[in-house]
Amino acid sequence: MPAPADSAFLRACRGQPTPFTPVWFQRQAGRSLPEYRKLRGEGSILDAIAQPDLAVELTLQPVRRYGVDAAILFSDIVVPIAAIGFGVDVVPGTGPVVESPFRSSTDLARLRPLEPEVDVPYVLETVRSLTAELRVPLIGLAGAPFTVASYLIEGGPSRTYARTKALMHGDPTTWRALLDALGTIAEAFLRAQVEAGADAVQLFDSWAGALSPDDYVTHVLPATAAVFAGLADLGVPRIYSGVGTGELLGAMASAGPEVVGVDWRVPLDVAWGRIGSGTAIQGNLDPEVCFAPWSTVERHARAVLARAGGRPGHIFNLGHGVLATTDPTVLERVVDLVHREERPEVAHG
Amino acid sequence: MPAPADSAFLRACRGQPTPFTPVWFQRQAGRSLPEYRKLRGEGSILDAIAQPDLAVELTLQPVRRYGVDAAILFSDIVVPIAAIGFGVDVVPGTGPVVESPFRSSTDLARLRPLEPEVDVPYVLETVRSLTAELRVPLIGLAGAPFTVASYLIEGGPSRTYARTKALMHGDPTTWRALLDALGTIAEAFLRAQVEAGADAVQLFDSWAGALSPDDYVTHVLPATAAVFAGLADLGVPRIYSGVGTGELLGAMASAGPEVVGVDWRVPLDVAWGRIGSGTAIQGNLDPEVCFAPWSTVERHARAVLARAGGRPGHIFNLGHGVLATTDPTVLERVVDLVHREERPEVAHG
Repeated sequence: MPAPADSAFLRACRGQPTPFTPVWFQRQAGRSLPEYRKLRGEGSILDAIAQPDLAVELTLQPVRRYGVDAAILFSDIVVPIAAIGFGVDVVPGTGPVVESPFRSSTDLARLRPLEPEVDVPYVLETVRSLTAELRVPLIGLAGAPFTVASYLIEGGPSRTYARTKALMHGDPTTWRALLDALGTIAEAFLRAQVEAGADAVQLFDSWAGALSPDDYVTHVLPATAAVFAGLADLGVPRIYSGVGTGELLGAMASAGPEVVGVDWRVPLDVAWGRIGSGTAIQGNLDPEVCFAPWSTVERHARAVLARAGGRPGHIFNLGHGVLATTDPTVLERVVDLVHREERPEVAHG
Repeated sequence: MPAPADSAFLRACRGQPTPFTPVWFQRQAGRSLPEYRKLRGEGSILDAIAQPDLAVELTLQPVRRYGVDAAILFSDIVVPIAAIGFGVDVVPGTGPVVESPFRSSTDLARLRPLEPEVDVPYVLETVRSLTAELRVPLIGLAGAPFTVASYLIEGGPSRTYARTKALMHGDPTTWRALLDALGTIAEAFLRAQVEAGADAVQLFDSWAGALSPDDYVTHVLPATAAVFAGLADLGVPRIYSGVGTGELLGAMASAGPEVVGVDWRVPLDVAWGRIGSGTAIQGNLDPEVCFAPWSTVERHARAVLARAGGRPGHIFNLGHGVLATTDPTVLERVVDLVHREERPEVAHG
């Protein structure tokens, strides 16, 4: 059952009017849900992703619980890199850890193209099962070239991206080849997810905000724009999101996505001004606000909606992933609030 | 020997024309210098700060080595908090660690006012010795209320500031009292440094960028503005700096400083537009760029200067502290480049 093209989420991605503001939550399939913790256990997320029955159920849980307007595939940005044998695992509490980090041009040979049906058949099986079951659109996902590169080079999470920037500045030829290779992998991975039934895709560039706009435009934008260009013929909405990317929003929009995600640091209307009115916007409640008393959560959620001003093309979301200790009932109430909020254009249009 | 009021640094802080762009580096007195590592050893920075002879020498080292236009006092933002017995130490490699974090309004009693001559006499002795010796202005320093509060509440460094934001949203009365208390301490500490001879002061709000602009304005700006207002009669330039604060720059300027610092994420001219032309600006080279080949460092440094466009009121600096593994000779060359760079207004004015 393909998601109806007139779902609020897909319409908003395309900048079309909707009867209510659609909402979903980054990392909605995650540890904040007791049903997730119960089912998922303690092992590596990569093992869980490789089990389609489990991945399907973990993707569905938040849709049932929250009544969100889109499902996001239970997956991880390092899935394709791990699948081609680069040697990466996701360590609980730490994140991606690379056995033998990317150091020089000789490591490029370790990044062969992804053959989705051979390398990640389980992901495609999960997508196929989900699209048969879901009544809301399914968002596929991949890591953006810069952010995946940062993990491969640093070997794990970083505060300063020292090695990443050193390679970028010190060996721009290898850097460009690396980002192109990762872009090719991301594109193949997303294309396969859409061909298996995903209704939209999201490219996560979580750490691009570490760069100055000049460096982003010179060293990251070309490979990223190529990913979006390569997916254009599929006709599905393409979302591009990061954290701390306030100064990059205009450049990110120029990469070609239908939707740009923004964290909570930029007021939504300011962010939209930078993105441009022709591109939809996703965000931007601070996930930490969910720990506040309800009246504060409500005020902050309403402020986001007020800044969107009922203009078509706003998808409500958190500015970053749901935090593990978030009370799920708060997110339920946020969905309810967003769905019920009257919007100027709807009320008077 | 007080620094001449017509030093390039002090003039630039006041927005006055200078014959060259003044430059200094955040955390210039630090581990990247071999002479620092040799002298300082391994112990707690708080112990080193408590030894005036040592603190004087560590403050002077980068001035001699780099030829920068200002000295920054060798100190730490937790010095006054530790001095009033809150129970905090700076753990090498980790940062400030608080034995018994701030949890509720009962902890307010632990934040008695600072009596600088009694609590931190060694800092004032260091300042007095330095101002007798220095030929460039000395910048005193303190931590801003939000950033110090975040350490006291989290108990150490944090990625999400979960407990800090929970207190801010959940108990705004205690939050305000906490920030006011920390503001009073910062003000007393900076005032004492200026009375001992410091020529300028810098209030570090390193982590304010974790907040949305609305939350910053509501919950942080009032106590911060009070610090600057309380120091206005001293007549020395007041610098206010943070990291990742691109969206807060306008609000930070409204707190009353003569100079606002910016990291590398915002192009300097964009940042200055947000700050307003009546306020000077400090920044904004990415410290990671210092690891690049010299031609790249040079291009980035020149780009910062070009964006400043020779307008009076630019103090060249890094967008964040010098990284420990930085090659000091690169910083020497940056100082030389900045000092030699022809500026439109100087060349033709």
